[in-house]
Amino acid sequence: MRRSGRRPGNQDTRQSILDAARSVFAERGFDNASIRAIAVEAKVDPALVHHYFGTKEKLFLASMNSPINPAALIPAAMAGPRDQAGERLVALVLSVWDSPAGAAAVALLRSAMSNEWTARLMREFVVTQVLRRAIAELALDDEDASLRAALVASQMAGIAVVRYVLKIEPVASADAETLVRALAPNVQRYLTEPL
Amino acid sequence: MRRSGRRPGNQDTRQSILDAARSVFAERGFDNASIRAIAVEAKVDPALVHHYFGTKEKLFLASMNSPINPAALIPAAMAGPRDQAGERLVALVLSVWDSPAGAAAVALLRSAMSNEWTARLMREFVVTQVLRRAIAELALDDEDASLRAALVASQMAGIAVVRYVLKIEPVASADAETLVRALAPNVQRYLTEPL
Repeated sequence: MRRSGRRPGNQDTRQSILDAARSVFAERGFDNASIRAIAVEAKVDPALVHHYFGTKEKLFLASMNSPINPAALIPAAMAGPRDQAGERLVALVLSVWDSPAGAAAVALLRSAMSNEWTARLMREFVVTQVLRRAIAELALDDEDASLRAALVASQMAGIAVVRYVLKIEPVASADAETLVRALAPNVQRYLTEPL
Repeated sequence: MRRSGRRPGNQDTRQSILDAARSVFAERGFDNASIRAIAVEAKVDPALVHHYFGTKEKLFLASMNSPINPAALIPAAMAGPRDQAGERLVALVLSVWDSPAGAAAVALLRSAMSNEWTARLMREFVVTQVLRRAIAELALDDEDASLRAALVASQMAGIAVVRYVLKIEPVASADAETLVRALAPNVQRYLTEPL
């Protein structure tokens, strides 16, 4: 009897569902994709999709090979004084990029850059799983909320490109504290100050 | 008789030189690469390299298929009041990304993301052709100059990723003025304010 945290299931079926999920999420976006449509695409019963992957969100993270679950990370990072949210967010993102999961995250970013289809999945991931949560946690309800979130995303994506892909010094070798100090006021401005 | 602004030369020889240049620039970096070493790699006389491409810098831009020449753009953008340098720099970079040359620039960035070798060329380009010039023009002579330049690069690379590759709204569709207003104070802080 096989013992493992993950339900192995039929690997061919699992893979068919993941392939179908990537296709449907990229085509329709996260919000408009349904478990039902993914099941149709994979030619399986919707109950099987739920059985293997649980929620639509979990299926989405699995289909992207996401090394992290933003739902578990973002609320904790956003809790606390609002005027230090930038610092906490930068520290969180750097801790993910610098962790063992970071290599997988960089691989995802590289893949998103080179492939239109993967770019669409990455956009859905960033917008629906990361930015939307951050906006909700900070209760950014002004009309600029989406702009603020996208600007924060631009700074965090850019630091990943410079630190891990292009490896431009001294950012490539800087310790996380130095970068948090340098980046946090800028991210804070995007979050809560006049634009 | 062929009339064209560009000296056509022998296309095979030109291509051999460009291939050799990419290889040597990626291996040694821009500063340590020499026309002589590139000529040896291409198995041609160094005089021929000069004849076809002029300076090492021009050869570098040609080998990267750079759609722009930073030497022609940066000094003009940096001239003017120091406390508005961030605004001028953001406006310049967006005008390049948004121009017909921008598609080529985005293609370069995509390529740099997917390939270690192209990433090294891109790093040499950003550091030696763009950041070094900007530092010199602004006379950023403090010990943080390289950090400041790399942070600016992170913001500009990130806005390219979000606007042109991931196409996250509202940044993807925003007009340039809106983005300049949103980004300029952050870039200005990286350039001249305490980090």
